[in-house]
Amino acid sequence: MTETTPQRTASRADAAPAHAAPARRVDDATVEQAVRRALELAALGPVTGGNPQVGCVLLDAEGRTVAEGWHHGAGTPHAEIDALSKLPVPHDARGLTAIVTLEPCNHTGRTGPCSEALIAAGVARVVYAVADPGANSSGGGARLREAGVEVDGGVLEAEAEFFLRRWLTAVRRGRPWVTVKWASTLDGRAAAADGTSQWITGPAARQRVHEQRSASDAILVGTGTVLADDPSLTARGDGGELLAAQPMPVVIGETAVPADAVLRSHPRGLIETGTRDLAAVLADLDARGLRRVYVEGGPTLASAIIAAGYADEYLVYLAPALLGGEKLALGDLGIRTIGEARRLRVTGVEQLGDDLLITAEPAEPAEPVDPAASAAPASTTAVSTTAASTTAVPSTEEN
Amino acid sequence: MTETTPQRTASRADAAPAHAAPARRVDDATVEQAVRRALELAALGPVTGGNPQVGCVLLDAEGRTVAEGWHHGAGTPHAEIDALSKLPVPHDARGLTAIVTLEPCNHTGRTGPCSEALIAAGVARVVYAVADPGANSSGGGARLREAGVEVDGGVLEAEAEFFLRRWLTAVRRGRPWVTVKWASTLDGRAAAADGTSQWITGPAARQRVHEQRSASDAILVGTGTVLADDPSLTARGDGGELLAAQPMPVVIGETAVPADAVLRSHPRGLIETGTRDLAAVLADLDARGLRRVYVEGGPTLASAIIAAGYADEYLVYLAPALLGGEKLALGDLGIRTIGEARRLRVTGVEQLGDDLLITAEPAEPAEPVDPAASAAPASTTAVSTTAASTTAVPSTEEN
Repeated sequence: MTETTPQRTASRADAAPAHAAPARRVDDATVEQAVRRALELAALGPVTGGNPQVGCVLLDAEGRTVAEGWHHGAGTPHAEIDALSKLPVPHDARGLTAIVTLEPCNHTGRTGPCSEALIAAGVARVVYAVADPGANSSGGGARLREAGVEVDGGVLEAEAEFFLRRWLTAVRRGRPWVTVKWASTLDGRAAAADGTSQWITGPAARQRVHEQRSASDAILVGTGTVLADDPSLTARGDGGELLAAQPMPVVIGETAVPADAVLRSHPRGLIETGTRDLAAVLADLDARGLRRVYVEGGPTLASAIIAAGYADEYLVYLAPALLGGEKLALGDLGIRTIGEARRLRVTGVEQLGDDLLITAEPAEPAEPVDPAASAAPASTTAVSTTAASTTAVPSTEEN
Repeated sequence: MTETTPQRTASRADAAPAHAAPARRVDDATVEQAVRRALELAALGPVTGGNPQVGCVLLDAEGRTVAEGWHHGAGTPHAEIDALSKLPVPHDARGLTAIVTLEPCNHTGRTGPCSEALIAAGVARVVYAVADPGANSSGGGARLREAGVEVDGGVLEAEAEFFLRRWLTAVRRGRPWVTVKWASTLDGRAAAADGTSQWITGPAARQRVHEQRSASDAILVGTGTVLADDPSLTARGDGGELLAAQPMPVVIGETAVPADAVLRSHPRGLIETGTRDLAAVLADLDARGLRRVYVEGGPTLASAIIAAGYADEYLVYLAPALLGGEKLALGDLGIRTIGEARRLRVTGVEQLGDDLLITAEPAEPAEPVDPAASAAPASTTAVSTTAASTTAVPSTEEN
């Protein structure tokens, strides 16, 4: 065990012989199968916490799996390190092929760079699916090649890109992946004329919302909703118990959350933005590593997020009921004429009890933008005349 | 052929011997199978025209099918007569069992009573699924028994009731079956801020609307829609050609349709109600035999129909798009608090191109009511304080 401990200080010349290509190169079909397995492993890790879900499989020269690993969450070893630690002789990967869903990082964060660990362990070849988009963490592939390791990127790239798209999108844009959720009647109402809204949807739909909260890094609500509903914004099981993963509640607006608000006892604490500047809010959340945010409303906040082009995903719970009246799930989106309609693509329809859950994404997703320019996101539809007005929550809308 | 011509004047005593029970009674399983076949035959007839879809199978004593028939539409022979005319010796049904989806009529309308025709033809036994609810046409079963024919009603009644429910409901309530259709974005909007709405839904959804028009006796629109859109309200194929069956356009409101309106050249003509009194309008349509009406809007008319409790069926086309703003597919429904929400039951979700078609019915359908009392329909939800205001189209709503 001692002699195979990874040596960070090993020179490239010392390491070179171990990196010689294996006598027999693992064939493409076996590699693809291993990438699929690595994606399965990746899915075992948490979706929240800011880090990507990554899986790793180590193959010998005959294509047989020698070890598997995945990332268990921020602050724990990356997938490659997890797999290396499970080798018969831990961290002795001489002659092996490492299959990873994401390009090995080249960055010393809470853990050391995976590129160096793979070099030190003596892997002969690295195959990854998707390139690391991180400004600080990319370059792992180049570093590995530099050290004499054979590197193949882009294997099953589309599958892996889809699997990681929320995280990849967040990193590329420098802002969180934004899921906007609302519940309405079939006629688009979120409450009756007197403001009552409990309950529009049934227990199965409401339980799903708790699960979605638990799979989010943060829940965004406007101050109006906090003042009107005094919500707890916790993620709870169907017995009312707190789920293991809780999102951070974020209250957007200038009004302070009351001292006696239920939200003040949230297990994750509370972020009050003190501003309605959505670009600033999202940049701040990104800096905190809150990559998946779940917008719960009310209508004013949801409309402002959509109008500004920040909605990456829509979860629309439709109750088989009609209410009429003026309490709409969405307010004004700054759209003047039909050609400016914000077109979506339905990605799923699911029956939950008596209700329907319609999931959708923008028909033409916004292009990745420079974080510094995120106040004016790329969008195919004109939403307003000035960036300032699209990113501020309008105060004329109720709730 | 001449000797088997039905004799309307045949006395019961003359006919009696032919009505003796067959030596061998057709067993229940064979009868049920024949009812199912009769329902298939019924479905071959038109859904419009005011008459029910009815099928008839004639079985011999061994349960073998001797003849089949169905109703081809108003003014043509009823299903029983159609089947009798197809016998090897037409109208000689001595010893046969007649299977009919609806109780044979006892009424001389455009055709003679089927009860008398079956008696004259010498059938031994009549089995029907659903009793005739018509005030003028019912009593056929009793008349047959009186003539010595063995009669069994209610076989596969639930299936036949479901098959005929639109017609049965219309006859029982003394008003047409009302289908309310609208197309909206996922946020419940029917148009953009400037009033443009072409097109919210795609070609597949719009073609389906034409097919639904063609399966309706009448299309109802408000005067606002006629003035705003100048619609043709014809049922057209995907090449723009007129379909064979055209609905009667009915314009509800006090404003006259302009002399140069496209609607004035509709192939079925035009009904202008001159009133917004929905109870009076529906009673008039019922009197004209227009049993299936399709409410196309606008929002004011659709909302008034729903608020008054007249909507028997909802067809909601949801486009994967968002518009925001104030042009709603439905306006006010007179609902004050969540407990009064008009609850529906989703009966289907279908993808049509990029759009969704959600079909629904009232969760608790209105009870059959006396036609004279239809101005205040039975309903489980409070809709307004006075019947007068619920049945008049409010003038404050736009469109």
